[in-house]
Amino acid sequence: MPIETIAILGVGLIGGSFGLALRQAGFTGRLIGVSSERTIRDALARGAVDVGAPIHEALPKADLIYLAQPISKIIELLPQVRRLAPEHALVTDVGSTKVEIVDRAAELFGEGPFFVGGHPMAGKEGRGVAIADATLFRGAAYALTPLHDELPNGEVVNSFLQYLEKLGAEVHVLTAAEHDRVVSWTSHMPQLASTALAALVMDAFRDNEGLTLAGSGLRDMTRLAESPFEIWSDILDTNRDNLQQVLSAYIARLESMRQSLDSTGLAKQFEEANALRQKLPKRDI
Amino acid sequence: MPIETIAILGVGLIGGSFGLALRQAGFTGRLIGVSSERTIRDALARGAVDVGAPIHEALPKADLIYLAQPISKIIELLPQVRRLAPEHALVTDVGSTKVEIVDRAAELFGEGPFFVGGHPMAGKEGRGVAIADATLFRGAAYALTPLHDELPNGEVVNSFLQYLEKLGAEVHVLTAAEHDRVVSWTSHMPQLASTALAALVMDAFRDNEGLTLAGSGLRDMTRLAESPFEIWSDILDTNRDNLQQVLSAYIARLESMRQSLDSTGLAKQFEEANALRQKLPKRDI
Repeated sequence: MPIETIAILGVGLIGGSFGLALRQAGFTGRLIGVSSERTIRDALARGAVDVGAPIHEALPKADLIYLAQPISKIIELLPQVRRLAPEHALVTDVGSTKVEIVDRAAELFGEGPFFVGGHPMAGKEGRGVAIADATLFRGAAYALTPLHDELPNGEVVNSFLQYLEKLGAEVHVLTAAEHDRVVSWTSHMPQLASTALAALVMDAFRDNEGLTLAGSGLRDMTRLAESPFEIWSDILDTNRDNLQQVLSAYIARLESMRQSLDSTGLAKQFEEANALRQKLPKRDI
Repeated sequence: MPIETIAILGVGLIGGSFGLALRQAGFTGRLIGVSSERTIRDALARGAVDVGAPIHEALPKADLIYLAQPISKIIELLPQVRRLAPEHALVTDVGSTKVEIVDRAAELFGEGPFFVGGHPMAGKEGRGVAIADATLFRGAAYALTPLHDELPNGEVVNSFLQYLEKLGAEVHVLTAAEHDRVVSWTSHMPQLASTALAALVMDAFRDNEGLTLAGSGLRDMTRLAESPFEIWSDILDTNRDNLQQVLSAYIARLESMRQSLDSTGLAKQFEEANALRQKLPKRDI
């Protein structure tokens, strides 16, 4: 059975963009939004969903169930989603950490309905369906973390993968543990480095005018620090062990820099840093 | 005596942009470039200088002497510049740290020729007169650090200030010590935070494919890490004491974050970080 009905739970930036992108990619089935009344009104106006419905009406009709809420909300909803989802359906989510979600899903899901964790590495500044964007997934990595080592077989799973490709996403299948380890380096540590720097400079310049000398370097390095804590609270809570390790490694690296400020030791750091820039994916997002 | 002849020593991105910007601002006098043969050829082609000359020919004719070389080169040249500069001339530089340059200049300069340290907070990726830009100083802060507390009086000094205003720079007069303290927070620490992060992630992902998941956060936070060490070597060498302190404060901040990963302590850090973003100058450079 191909995908005819999709329930999007949480029609914000990601959920709304998923709806808009599917429509643009030629999806002709039904998009049911499950969200607050106000969000559904905005989502309908933008064409991101066809109709709003309460969860107990939307899920039993859905072939694909797309959980696009905050991590803690996804975890909280999983038992209800399991009860309401049809046997043939695929349930997937967009949470920024995967181990806690996938562990909980593994207790609940099995041979149908299926569950596959997901994390589209896409976003932009701001939130909500108002800035949803049909091109959000284009060129972006999209991590899929199955409950066990491999994606389950099944028509809905295959169809979902085909849609992700049509959306322009680069699908990577990996374990939830590996995902969370990788993003602690590539996403969570950069966020904390930015937040720490911004908070520190704020403290140092609270009562003086020195910031008038600040140039583009400080602006670049504190851009991430604009992210609201309510998004990061769940992420940090659910990836604490990895972050402990990465933060410790970053602290140790800075400490060794501090100790080699008066030697040529820093040349190697700059070289390594340059090498990373060559290696980073050149996606234009 | 107004400024009729300007000698620019080191016609790279900053020196070349100074020449182009002066011309665009209506300067009708002579721009003499002192640089390598090849650089002078490129600078002439771009119209950044009118003529090239060796230092001992250029300086005795100059009303304004603009030192736009690396910090260590500026310090090395100061005695020769002092010997060759006319009594009425103003000597100024563009070094990214000011204490060592100004201390050395204070030993050499007095009531004429005059010396005033300078640091235009302007730049862009890349180097050399090829990317010099007449609008480089527009909207940018331009720090001036006199030998003593105040700018010297004199027609050439006043004329230089007027040209900086015509170039669109925001002039800030402060002591060399205060300048170096401020930029250790607003420029040097962001650079080291970026370099450390990039070098660390490079180490962690040397032999695996995890970086395919990297998104825009890591790219933003490692952009500065593309700066070559040869530029930073001098800067770090001449601002070591301030950087020791700021690095220690950053390390302590990260350590306290690490310890409060499992509490609500991070909410306050995110708030502070947001507050900095509101406070940063919104220059579009």
